[in-house]
Amino acid sequence: MSGIMGNKLKLSIFGESHGPAIGITIDGLPPGVAIDMDKVLAEMDRRKPGKSLLSTTRKESDTPEIISGFFNGYTTGAPLTAIIRNSDQRSKVYEDIKNLMRPGHADYPAFVKYGGFHDYRGGGHFSGRITAPLVFAGAIAKQILAEKKIFVGAHVKSISHIDDKSFQDVEVNQALFDELKKQELPLIDGEKRTEIEEVILQARKDMDSVGGTIECTVVGIPAGIGDPFFNSVESVLAHLIFSVPAVKGIEFGKGFEMTKLRGSETNDAYYYERDEVKTHTNNNGGITGGITNGMPILFTVAIKPTSSIAKKQQTINVAEHKNTELVVKGRHDPCIVPRAIPVIEAVTALGILDLMLIS
Amino acid sequence: MSGIMGNKLKLSIFGESHGPAIGITIDGLPPGVAIDMDKVLAEMDRRKPGKSLLSTTRKESDTPEIISGFFNGYTTGAPLTAIIRNSDQRSKVYEDIKNLMRPGHADYPAFVKYGGFHDYRGGGHFSGRITAPLVFAGAIAKQILAEKKIFVGAHVKSISHIDDKSFQDVEVNQALFDELKKQELPLIDGEKRTEIEEVILQARKDMDSVGGTIECTVVGIPAGIGDPFFNSVESVLAHLIFSVPAVKGIEFGKGFEMTKLRGSETNDAYYYERDEVKTHTNNNGGITGGITNGMPILFTVAIKPTSSIAKKQQTINVAEHKNTELVVKGRHDPCIVPRAIPVIEAVTALGILDLMLIS
Amino acid sequence: MSGIMGNKLKLSIFGESHGPAIGITIDGLPPGVAIDMDKVLAEMDRRKPGKSLLSTTRKESDTPEIISGFFNGYTTGAPLTAIIRNSDQRSKVYEDIKNLMRPGHADYPAFVKYGGFHDYRGGGHFSGRITAPLVFAGAIAKQILAEKKIFVGAHVKSISHIDDKSFQDVEVNQALFDELKKQELPLIDGEKRTEIEEVILQARKDMDSVGGTIECTVVGIPAGIGDPFFNSVESVLAHLIFSVPAVKGIEFGKGFEMTKLRGSETNDAYYYERDEVKTHTNNNGGITGGITNGMPILFTVAIKPTSSIAKKQQTINVAEHKNTELVVKGRHDPCIVPRAIPVIEAVTALGILDLMLIS
Amino acid sequence: MSGIMGNKLKLSIFGESHGPAIGITIDGLPPGVAIDMDKVLAEMDRRKPGKSLLSTTRKESDTPEIISGFFNGYTTGAPLTAIIRNSDQRSKVYEDIKNLMRPGHADYPAFVKYGGFHDYRGGGHFSGRITAPLVFAGAIAKQILAEKKIFVGAHVKSISHIDDKSFQDVEVNQALFDELKKQELPLIDGEKRTEIEEVILQARKDMDSVGGTIECTVVGIPAGIGDPFFNSVESVLAHLIFSVPAVKGIEFGKGFEMTKLRGSETNDAYYYERDEVKTHTNNNGGITGGITNGMPILFTVAIKPTSSIAKKQQTINVAEHKNTELVVKGRHDPCIVPRAIPVIEAVTALGILDLMLIS
Repeated sequence: MSGIMGNKLKLSIFGESHGPAIGITIDGLPPGVAIDMDKVLAEMDRRKPGKSLLSTTRKESDTPEIISGFFNGYTTGAPLTAIIRNSDQRSKVYEDIKNLMRPGHADYPAFVKYGGFHDYRGGGHFSGRITAPLVFAGAIAKQILAEKKIFVGAHVKSISHIDDKSFQDVEVNQALFDELKKQELPLIDGEKRTEIEEVILQARKDMDSVGGTIECTVVGIPAGIGDPFFNSVESVLAHLIFSVPAVKGIEFGKGFEMTKLRGSETNDAYYYERDEVKTHTNNNGGITGGITNGMPILFTVAIKPTSSIAKKQQTINVAEHKNTELVVKGRHDPCIVPRAIPVIEAVTALGILDLMLIS
Repeated sequence: MSGIMGNKLKLSIFGESHGPAIGITIDGLPPGVAIDMDKVLAEMDRRKPGKSLLSTTRKESDTPEIISGFFNGYTTGAPLTAIIRNSDQRSKVYEDIKNLMRPGHADYPAFVKYGGFHDYRGGGHFSGRITAPLVFAGAIAKQILAEKKIFVGAHVKSISHIDDKSFQDVEVNQALFDELKKQELPLIDGEKRTEIEEVILQARKDMDSVGGTIECTVVGIPAGIGDPFFNSVESVLAHLIFSVPAVKGIEFGKGFEMTKLRGSETNDAYYYERDEVKTHTNNNGGITGGITNGMPILFTVAIKPTSSIAKKQQTINVAEHKNTELVVKGRHDPCIVPRAIPVIEAVTALGILDLMLIS
Repeated sequence: MSGIMGNKLKLSIFGESHGPAIGITIDGLPPGVAIDMDKVLAEMDRRKPGKSLLSTTRKESDTPEIISGFFNGYTTGAPLTAIIRNSDQRSKVYEDIKNLMRPGHADYPAFVKYGGFHDYRGGGHFSGRITAPLVFAGAIAKQILAEKKIFVGAHVKSISHIDDKSFQDVEVNQALFDELKKQELPLIDGEKRTEIEEVILQARKDMDSVGGTIECTVVGIPAGIGDPFFNSVESVLAHLIFSVPAVKGIEFGKGFEMTKLRGSETNDAYYYERDEVKTHTNNNGGITGGITNGMPILFTVAIKPTSSIAKKQQTINVAEHKNTELVVKGRHDPCIVPRAIPVIEAVTALGILDLMLIS
Repeated sequence: MSGIMGNKLKLSIFGESHGPAIGITIDGLPPGVAIDMDKVLAEMDRRKPGKSLLSTTRKESDTPEIISGFFNGYTTGAPLTAIIRNSDQRSKVYEDIKNLMRPGHADYPAFVKYGGFHDYRGGGHFSGRITAPLVFAGAIAKQILAEKKIFVGAHVKSISHIDDKSFQDVEVNQALFDELKKQELPLIDGEKRTEIEEVILQARKDMDSVGGTIECTVVGIPAGIGDPFFNSVESVLAHLIFSVPAVKGIEFGKGFEMTKLRGSETNDAYYYERDEVKTHTNNNGGITGGITNGMPILFTVAIKPTSSIAKKQQTINVAEHKNTELVVKGRHDPCIVPRAIPVIEAVTALGILDLMLIS
């Protein structure tokens, strides 16, 4: 396992879904950063399940306890560690199926890799629950970025075949981000809300799940951030984002659509607007040559349908070494996309902050 | 700049397009690996420009000189360094436009980041030429993987709006890879060749460029490779691949298409075929939970149209601080996709080998 | 702050002396390692203060709670994190002197570096208490090494001007290590015990402190461990050992004494003893060219006298910006050397295990 | 092998003594640094052998060729790579003894580790010659530090049993450093010069070698540099210095001598001298709690007698698997200490610069 990541701002993540606790150490934070804990908890609330039938009914208190690196309301400069105790665990359902490899999950690769010693209950270290500490750390990174007038926001760009508008189509500002944060299903275009909710609830009824895409943007970011050759902004963000469970694709700016266009259409032409350098278009999503060019960073992430479904599935029993069928009980998210949004925002904020500290 | 990457197998890349030489150090190679230099040169040949009107007419001899880590035909276990001298440079054209920021290129972000001290000639350290040493290193990684019966192959999946078949549609074996390697424009389905060539040549005529996608696969890879949380296979490969100039997107398995399907459609069901564990489908591209599951790794990369085009473009002059027009002379690739294929294969082989060494 | 260290086996340490808890994450542990918790606690007991007048009378319960990476008695392969709650803190004494920079301590450099935001109570992140998690981690590393018949042991080589025998003078075996572990003041030559104890107790009486040296050895280590150029065994061990508070010197084998001898006297001549390669002498402390040669690793560490003394000292008041006098109240170790022994053993075991995992 | 080191300023070293070339990549240098190549060559000259009978008569031209990262007299911000071609190699002598393991050298551990595939000629990657690129890189680091009024200097503190004065006994300034740099045998106290030269020449006559110590200091360094827990200044410098061949010990400040004193004698008391914070003594060598305290950094390094001696020695033949005798022909340094001085200075400058970039 490799739970450590980063250059100057290093993250060390730990914990299993049904173990005593999960948590994270943030190493390399500057001293003297005031942390607004209410904002941190608000971010963590956004990731929490159990708010409606759109997500799993598992309750998580998700209250982080800071055990180091924080003193009298400020970071100390020493590693900041927070732990979150696990609760409301129903491990029994996992005992029953521990030899049945759930399709789409880490079960089988982990069984091979860890020789059966990994904690299989609730996905163990592979559980989406492990992203809670990332949201905690990201909330701190966001506060540091906000001091520099840099803001990170994201919304549901699509669920199944239904699309929301893009950040490219509207004015992006702090008010929009605030509005999106209030929504359990953060959409720019409210008219699609009912349609999308119905797609999700129908999947739940069918004991199935649906996927979608998340569009994320970073506004206020200056030009010159990123450290190619290998630490291009795209490389660092993609690395972090593909660590988030269920992510299967990422594209920056117009991404895959650019491959169908010509250079004269995709090159973002520069111009001076008074002292500021801007581009007429932002097809490259604010990054050229792996470095920010001063336009908003913009990228879209593909989230596959939740692997945990209640429907009967074909699979193997590794103890009995035979083909079999599997019905996964327990409580699952019919669509993980909305809850993944604060996670994508969090790792983006962490990646950008790390790049700024070393750039 | 951050030209160093890797866990156990570390790469250190260096060089500028119009400087004395470019090169790479491969640190952490096991000792006693026999390297077939003819195969290395054949790989490098695939990336070379100047073979036809489909690419730039700049000639590169691209002959690597190994200056350490290789003795009597075998790796020594010490860092293996190779350098490639630059030649056929026409720096004059870059002097003329050094204050004009080429759209789509690193020029402007690099100007901000390096305060004007970077080598602007021919893209400097941001030139696609810097990928030649990666192909060299990847050729060695491929030979080590081939000893373990692991093979990496790729082809043009699309150019502009024209699609080739997918690896998912045909039988993938070493013979197919050998066949693809012989082609300047590596396609599974030969019938589209003329159509694609015409799209590229038309772009050249129009002083413009086109993009496309590359599909890459790794066959023979065992289950259990990858090191989550942060070093998931997707994370490591995406990190390396986004370091390659012009890449703007990546998706694993069915990627973005999965977001429109349901979990019951995308979960890859396991079954035993005698002693072997397989999945009926491979929507996840051989990776679940960030770890290989024994099926072929499969992913698609979006390559934007070459930023260097001969057409007149709007841009800024940073010395005179004003808006202006730009015509980039010099020799450019109307489509970089075919030449990017050995690069994508190379970084894939390097990433996989590194993961195998630490897994 | 940089609390993260290691190659394959990575440590992430956190905590402040008077904060809620201290702890460590061990990343990269293989799965399936059975951990004998009694042995872990026994190691931690060796570091604990309050056993006699030879050390501080501060009580530490030092009971680690494992919160991840451990399941059904075995490591899972996921990051293993343990935390130790702080207790018996008397922060008041530190409030009184927070602007008075204790000589020999981190106070003043930390004040400059962290701008006054660090946790000054009891040394904060610089407290010797932070070594408790290292002993926890080292105890696990020792158990893994012991499975390979590799053992780490250490003893007090000198206190002030009084010397114990050297490992070079006696037969080193597991029985000797077991015997040393039982002693609060681990000495090979028991005859010096009273004399040494008197030196320590006299220092206490005089409100002063004494230093000493620790000799550490690793037996059973095979040849071929270490990863030069930069990860020589000496480099890796010295890096870890100089992270331990109060260490001011290290020498391998005969170390500084070798500088007064000739090459013909210090070169360790090889010979075959049946199939085994040995050297007649071990002046190089088991390491040549930065790699183990199969002989026991042997090195000596200089521990300065405890900086915390009760005597009145000259210093500065940074709030009032003036010269002043300081009397440090609180409970201090008149000699930290005996309690540093399990710490030196621990980081040695961790460093060696990491090198074995990447060699 | 692990030839890569550093946090923000990363070094990647490569090359074998009798291969085509040796070299180094410096990654993470800021752009816009003017490099005075005459000063770089002057530093490299100090390390060069063949100047008198005090060192080996092997000639090295040691002229570095910069092949990247340097443009129009300034660093570009891209990785800076320099290579040094090997010449005047007499490989024949090494062929004859390739199965005879030279005592004190890396031969036997390397044979075990690399399975006989390492380049055994002239020590290969373990040759002291590999330190030439470090001196090149260090010369650049020194120029960057000098801009900040930080200077690194070192001298022979002792050869065999004859001591020079200490930096603690004299006034340390740039003039002293300049004077020391001119000397082939850099001594503070010139009166010992003849005596020391005789000791070295007598060792040469006796086909033997002698060792010694080097004292190194960094003046002008501000308080607050260093990144504990693990990247204490002592840890980082010791790591780099133990990578230099023949180093067997290091002590900071009074080091081992401190272990015989009391805390009241070794604590360096602070006082204000106008606005500046100083300490009355500098027993801790400018570092407390792993961080610089504003006083000069001061440490002493133990260099063992050169392992290569012409005298007949006992050893083993690994091909014939038997005990045998060995006479090493070739040209050797009777004392490597003077030539190691610029190397110790170089890695010190590199380590300090890296710490300043991340602190």
